[in-house]
Amino acid sequence: MSLYVMKFGGSSVGDTERMQRVARRVVEKQDEGHQCVVVVSAMGDTTDDLIDQSKLLNENPPAREMDMLMTTGEQISMSLLAMSIHNLGREAVSYTGWQAGFRTEAVHGKARINDISPIRVNKALEEGKIVIVAGFQGMTEEGEITTLGRGGSDTTAVALAAAIQADVCEIYTDVDGIYSTDPRVVKCARKLNEISYDEMLELANLGAAVLHPRAVEYAKHNNVKLVVRSSFNYNEGTVVKEEASMEQGAVVSGIAFDKNVARISILGVSDYPGVLARVFGALAQEGIDVDIIVQSGVQNGEADFSFTIARHESQRALSVIEGIRTEVPFREVTSEVNLVKVSIVGAGMVSHPGVAAQMFDVISKQDVSIKMVSTSEIKVSCVIEGSNLEGVVQALHTAYGLDTNQQASVGGPQVRR
Amino acid sequence: MSLYVMKFGGSSVGDTERMQRVARRVVEKQDEGHQCVVVVSAMGDTTDDLIDQSKLLNENPPAREMDMLMTTGEQISMSLLAMSIHNLGREAVSYTGWQAGFRTEAVHGKARINDISPIRVNKALEEGKIVIVAGFQGMTEEGEITTLGRGGSDTTAVALAAAIQADVCEIYTDVDGIYSTDPRVVKCARKLNEISYDEMLELANLGAAVLHPRAVEYAKHNNVKLVVRSSFNYNEGTVVKEEASMEQGAVVSGIAFDKNVARISILGVSDYPGVLARVFGALAQEGIDVDIIVQSGVQNGEADFSFTIARHESQRALSVIEGIRTEVPFREVTSEVNLVKVSIVGAGMVSHPGVAAQMFDVISKQDVSIKMVSTSEIKVSCVIEGSNLEGVVQALHTAYGLDTNQQASVGGPQVRR
Repeated sequence: MSLYVMKFGGSSVGDTERMQRVARRVVEKQDEGHQCVVVVSAMGDTTDDLIDQSKLLNENPPAREMDMLMTTGEQISMSLLAMSIHNLGREAVSYTGWQAGFRTEAVHGKARINDISPIRVNKALEEGKIVIVAGFQGMTEEGEITTLGRGGSDTTAVALAAAIQADVCEIYTDVDGIYSTDPRVVKCARKLNEISYDEMLELANLGAAVLHPRAVEYAKHNNVKLVVRSSFNYNEGTVVKEEASMEQGAVVSGIAFDKNVARISILGVSDYPGVLARVFGALAQEGIDVDIIVQSGVQNGEADFSFTIARHESQRALSVIEGIRTEVPFREVTSEVNLVKVSIVGAGMVSHPGVAAQMFDVISKQDVSIKMVSTSEIKVSCVIEGSNLEGVVQALHTAYGLDTNQQASVGGPQVRR
Repeated sequence: MSLYVMKFGGSSVGDTERMQRVARRVVEKQDEGHQCVVVVSAMGDTTDDLIDQSKLLNENPPAREMDMLMTTGEQISMSLLAMSIHNLGREAVSYTGWQAGFRTEAVHGKARINDISPIRVNKALEEGKIVIVAGFQGMTEEGEITTLGRGGSDTTAVALAAAIQADVCEIYTDVDGIYSTDPRVVKCARKLNEISYDEMLELANLGAAVLHPRAVEYAKHNNVKLVVRSSFNYNEGTVVKEEASMEQGAVVSGIAFDKNVARISILGVSDYPGVLARVFGALAQEGIDVDIIVQSGVQNGEADFSFTIARHESQRALSVIEGIRTEVPFREVTSEVNLVKVSIVGAGMVSHPGVAAQMFDVISKQDVSIKMVSTSEIKVSCVIEGSNLEGVVQALHTAYGLDTNQQASVGGPQVRR
């Protein structure tokens, strides 16, 4: 007998029929001899409908009242799911965030969980009941209702799994698991059987729709075994856990990319201490996130440097830089907006030098020039022209042995370098 | 400065426009220098929609989960109203039943309030905020969410008014107040300026749609001054309070009627001790409510008696009586289903003998025969043929000086006897 936390997102409980499917799925798990705690999101469009309604009354509603409003979405879906499970002849009991013992900081709209006292959840489990918990919500010490913000229900599931020492936290969604890259770009993208927490975090911009980075961090910190799988079929899904038992020989697990990249270059900057701090301090003050930063060597007391930001921020960034020209004199500032960032991600690359060199080789053979490079322990990123994205991702996917058919024929991941 | 509890029902907050009208109304009250606590029901059809959704998943859902589901309705309307009031530049804060301190017995679907600890409500009032409280709901000692059942939001308002020692509890609805009779039957029905708790209770089947009897009892018990008025205009409404200051000279305040009456007569029953207890015990066991009971004198050791029940219960009642024939022998049982009960209600009749006699006179002048009579301190009821209902109600309404035009011309209620 294992203890499962099963999280179902809004699309999995989007209508009555889907709700019944989830109920059957949970009952099947109990039939296999397991204990089940289910975390649910609001049904389908409920959250958006509530937001629309609020906007009609107040364009800028107080966050406290928005939390009061939004938390009804999960309360509706959890009670309906409980009824649907009762209809299958099983005992089920639903709890709001505060009833399940979620205590959060006193912030509305994006509260962090302070601690969880799952007394009632544990008691109901002992009584043989299926427990259903509202995702995304908690309560402050003062009894105020809060929400956890984006990815909240994933975080609820992971945090609850840690608190009740569940054996597995299953995240049910509308895809089969985590893929080696976006299947819309690479047709033979491969579903991964396993992936490490760190890799999952680096693949975030591919996987964010499936599993929120915050939940992954929480899982890593509390060593919660995650399984990402489909609520529409019985395929095995992707296990997210510590890297110890990663797939043999797989140096690169996936190819991530970000289509929304602009580069700003500041040329001929007088080199003196604090110049970088001044530039990036000014950008941070405006809330502009900077990703990759590259500085050239100093020549004749002048340096060039470049950085990447989200495309839609480029005009604002240029204004900020013009605004500090008197303090930080430079010769010229330029911007390029049609760029993308392609990354190879893999826990195995720590112990495999030459992975970056192979990546550059693959890209150059596509006749594509690399504009910027950035590396971390388990990731190498290259910034290239946006028009080259699909060809480069496909070539890297093939080069690192991630294509499905290739896997099937050679029996295991192959890495060429 | 007075402290007001203002209760708005589902139709008063049925859509965005009405919600805004309620917000303005509350702000106007604050502008007059008063403190305001608002109790809201779920918006328009929300409750029915939720019930419909639940029925699709479970024809007979567990009451606990129904309470979990239903209480979201008020939580949505209270938070939207808070946003709408904020939009008018005022501070408002909404509380669920449990946050407002409503503790109930551990029964789902129709819990009674055990006590109220309105600590947060009082604190928010002290801070100058408008407080909004979800009607119809509370929490048990064990932290389970409960609902108060039919008329729940009225009861919430009255109980809260008692707990915070409000000066007035205003019940906003879609009619101008309590009428002397149903305006659909008598065109010149008169809106009452004042009425006593007891009269209101006796008029319940006219006024139930406006004010639930349970809330009236609670108000009487705690001496809460009620005002029933329209949320769509500024007319003064009807004050419900102790009878001390009832309208001068008004012996009869209103004409109530019940269209749903059947009479069962059991003829030739052997008279012995306990026979009535046996008959009505058997009916009670089947959950059949009996209203008026009339027993004739005993002749030759045999008695006849009759009683009234709701029309749709008559077939079941006949079966019950046939079922006890061996224990309680009788000659014959008959039933009449097309009857109605007409009642005159008035606190003044205690000190005015002859009111009943006048009623019989008015009815006989309509050529209508009276089948049964029942009296209480402030009410006289006659059971008559259903086809005579409208004529009799109109005649009584006129006879007791309740018609509007008559009032206008003679300057005050007149009672002829």
